[in-house]
Amino acid sequence: MSHTAELIAVGTELLLGNIANTDAQMISQGLSALGITVHNHTVVGDNPERLAEALDIARRRADIIITTGGLGPTYDDLTKQTICKTFGRELELHQDILDEISAWFQSKMGKKMPENNIQQAMLPVNCTVFDNPVGTAPGCAFQEGGVHVLMLPGPPFECRYMFENRAAPYLEKLTDGVIVSHEIRIFGMGESSVEETLYEPMTRLTNPTLAPYAKPNEVMLRATAKVDTPEAAEAMLRPLVAQVQDMLGDVVYGVDVGSLEEVVSGLLAERGLTLAAAESCTGGLLSKRMTDLPGASKVFRGGVVSYVNDVKANVLGVPREVLEQYGAVSEETARAMAEGCRRVCGSDLAVSLTGVAGPERDDWGNEVGTVYAALAGPEETICKKLTCGRGRGRDRVRTAAASNALDLIRRFLLKLPL
Amino acid sequence: MSHTAELIAVGTELLLGNIANTDAQMISQGLSALGITVHNHTVVGDNPERLAEALDIARRRADIIITTGGLGPTYDDLTKQTICKTFGRELELHQDILDEISAWFQSKMGKKMPENNIQQAMLPVNCTVFDNPVGTAPGCAFQEGGVHVLMLPGPPFECRYMFENRAAPYLEKLTDGVIVSHEIRIFGMGESSVEETLYEPMTRLTNPTLAPYAKPNEVMLRATAKVDTPEAAEAMLRPLVAQVQDMLGDVVYGVDVGSLEEVVSGLLAERGLTLAAAESCTGGLLSKRMTDLPGASKVFRGGVVSYVNDVKANVLGVPREVLEQYGAVSEETARAMAEGCRRVCGSDLAVSLTGVAGPERDDWGNEVGTVYAALAGPEETICKKLTCGRGRGRDRVRTAAASNALDLIRRFLLKLPL
Repeated sequence: MSHTAELIAVGTELLLGNIANTDAQMISQGLSALGITVHNHTVVGDNPERLAEALDIARRRADIIITTGGLGPTYDDLTKQTICKTFGRELELHQDILDEISAWFQSKMGKKMPENNIQQAMLPVNCTVFDNPVGTAPGCAFQEGGVHVLMLPGPPFECRYMFENRAAPYLEKLTDGVIVSHEIRIFGMGESSVEETLYEPMTRLTNPTLAPYAKPNEVMLRATAKVDTPEAAEAMLRPLVAQVQDMLGDVVYGVDVGSLEEVVSGLLAERGLTLAAAESCTGGLLSKRMTDLPGASKVFRGGVVSYVNDVKANVLGVPREVLEQYGAVSEETARAMAEGCRRVCGSDLAVSLTGVAGPERDDWGNEVGTVYAALAGPEETICKKLTCGRGRGRDRVRTAAASNALDLIRRFLLKLPL
Repeated sequence: MSHTAELIAVGTELLLGNIANTDAQMISQGLSALGITVHNHTVVGDNPERLAEALDIARRRADIIITTGGLGPTYDDLTKQTICKTFGRELELHQDILDEISAWFQSKMGKKMPENNIQQAMLPVNCTVFDNPVGTAPGCAFQEGGVHVLMLPGPPFECRYMFENRAAPYLEKLTDGVIVSHEIRIFGMGESSVEETLYEPMTRLTNPTLAPYAKPNEVMLRATAKVDTPEAAEAMLRPLVAQVQDMLGDVVYGVDVGSLEEVVSGLLAERGLTLAAAESCTGGLLSKRMTDLPGASKVFRGGVVSYVNDVKANVLGVPREVLEQYGAVSEETARAMAEGCRRVCGSDLAVSLTGVAGPERDDWGNEVGTVYAALAGPEETICKKLTCGRGRGRDRVRTAAASNALDLIRRFLLKLPL
C-alpha cells in the first residue's frame, strides 16, 4: 500500500520568520527514503483553531500526519490537546515519563523540574510513546480512522533525533518492500554540469532512480531502488553507482560518506599521516570541520589561526619581507604559512588558507573570494589559487575556501601510495 | 484595515526535502515588519490540482496570497496558469518583457533565448508587473474579489530582491499602522526558567506582547507592539524591555544584537582591547565565530588550535609537567593555554578552552561535557569549570563551550572601566 503524508509545523516563530522550517526538510528527506510521498507542508501558529483546521484538511488528503512543535512545557504549546480533540482521544498522565523528566532536570540541570513540565508527561491514551533522550518533550503516535498521527518536538536537534530513531522505525512497518539508496558525493563540478553529463541515465531510469541534490558548495546524487529485498536493491544499485563514478571521474569524492573532512580523515588514517592547519580568512573553520569528527586527534594535531600579520610572522614564522613584498593574500604567504605550520605543529602535512572573505576587497586590491591554499609535505609544498563563493558573501567564501582546501588534501593523498 | 496573508510555495524540491523553505521565512519577516499577519504557510508540489486546492483554501481565509516558485520556463512551472484559472483571469503576452528577457540572455548568457522562455512573458491581464533585474522570470500582482495575489520567483536570491523592491512597496500601500519588535537575547538561563520568571507579563500582555523563542544554547524574547506610528510603538516597548532586563539581570546579553560574538567584539572595540583564542576541544569553533563578523581583525588577532598535547606544549608553552600531572582537561592546563596564547599572539586578552567533546569520556575519567575555560589578561587569569551540552552530543558540547567562553569574556569586559 502506498502512503501519503502531510507535515504540519506548529509555531508562531515560523510565521514571524524567526526560523525556517528545516524540520519539514529533514522529515521530507526521510519520508522520501522510506518511499512515502509528501503532498503538502503546512505551517500554523500557536493557535488551537487554526491547528484544528489544518488537521481537518490534512486528514482528508493524507493517511500519515506528522506534526512538529508545540510539545513544550509552556502555555502556548498546544499540539497534543488539539490533536486529541480533533481525533477524539483523551490525554493521560504517564508516570514513568514524568519520572524521567524529573530525573533529567536533576541530573542534567541540577535542579527541580518546574511545575509546568508536568504537561509533557500527558500523552494520548493508547499511543506509541517516542521517548526523548536528547530533550524533555516526548513525542508519540497513534492510529485513528485509518490515519496515523505522529507528534515530534520542534527544536531541530530533538526533531531529527526522534524522527530518525523513533518515527522512522514506526513508519517503516507501514510500508512494503524496501527502499535502498546510495549517496554519491561530488565536489568541484556544478549541478548543471553534473546533470548535463548524466542526462541520459537520469532521464531514462525509473527504478533505480538517480536524482541530484544541490548542497552548499557541492552536489549530491542519490541512487534509489525500491524492491522486495535489500539484496535485490543492492544488485540494481551497484552497476549504476559504478557507471556514475566512471562518467564523472575524480570529482566523486565518496559514496555514502558524511563529508569531505570525513574522507580526508580516512585517507590520512590509512596512510598513517597527520595534518595541521594554518588559517587566515577561514579563521578556524577548517580546523573546526576536521575536529567535528570523534577521534580527530589521531590524524589532526591542531593549527594556528593567524588572522593578523603579526601572528603569521611571530607564530608561524612567515618572513616579514614576504608579507611586505607580496601581501598576506599571496602564494608566497600561503606557502610560508603551510611550511611554518607544519614545523611548529610537528605534523606530516600542513594546509594553509589566506584570502579575502569580504565584504570588501583587501588593501592590495584582491577581490572578495580570492584565496590561496597551500599544502606542505616532507618533500614539497603545492599551492592553488582559488576563486571562492562567487559573490555570495562572507560565509560562502569561507565555506568554499575550507572545502577547496580539503579537496586539495584529498587529491594529494590519493596520489600517495598506501 | 488589518490584513491576513498566506504564503504558498510551489515546488516538488521542497516536498522532497532538497531545500528548506527559506523564502517563506524571508517573506514572513518582511510581512511582520509591514504589520501584516501571516496565519499559514503552505507548500505544494509542481502539481496544478494541488496548487488549485491550496489556492481555494487560502482565498477563504486570507486577503493576501503570496506564491513563490513555479514561474520558470520549464514544463513543471505552472503557477501563473493555475492562479489565472482559479481567479478567472486570462494570460497575455507582454512584448516589452519578452524583449527584456531576450536582451538578458544576449548580454548575460551570450546566447539566444530558448523558445520555452516565451512563457515567462505571459502575465495575467491588468496585473502590476514586478520586473526582475536579477533573473529572467518576472513576478506580478493583481486584486480579484477582495484578495490580492502576488507571484514571486522561487530562487531565494531573486525572491528576496523582488519581495524587498517590488512586493513590499505594493503591500505597504495596503496597510495602516506598523509593527515594531525588539529582540532580547539571553544566555545562561533556560527557556522554562525565563518563562517562570516572566510568567506574569507574558500571560497578561496583549499589546505589546512578549514571547520566548528557544535557540541552541540560548533564549530569545521578542517584544512586539502594533500601533499607528513607530514612535508610539517605541513608547510602548521601551518600558517593557527595561522591565525584562530588570527582572532577568545580567543573563540578558543584548537587545537587537546578532550574537554573543557580536557583543563581545563590540565590548572589545569600545575598550580598545584585542583577543586571541587557544582551543582544544572546540577545535577552532570559537575563532571561527569571532571571525564570522566583517572587520574582526580589529579586535581578534587569531589563536592556536592545540588539539594534541604536543601543540599545547610546543606552540603555547604549556609546561609538560602540568599536562602530565593534571591532564589536558584541567584548570591548570586551561590557565597555561590562555597565558601562553596571550604571549604568542601578542593580544591584550586570551581565552582558552579544553574539555571533553565526546562521544567518550577521556582517559583521565572526565565526563563528556566537562570543559575548562580560562581568560588571561594583563593582571590576572580567571578560570571557570563548565558542564556543556547536557549529554546532547559532540556538536552541542562544542557549541555550548564556545558560547560559555564568549559569555565569560563578556562578563569580564563589562567589569572593566570604559
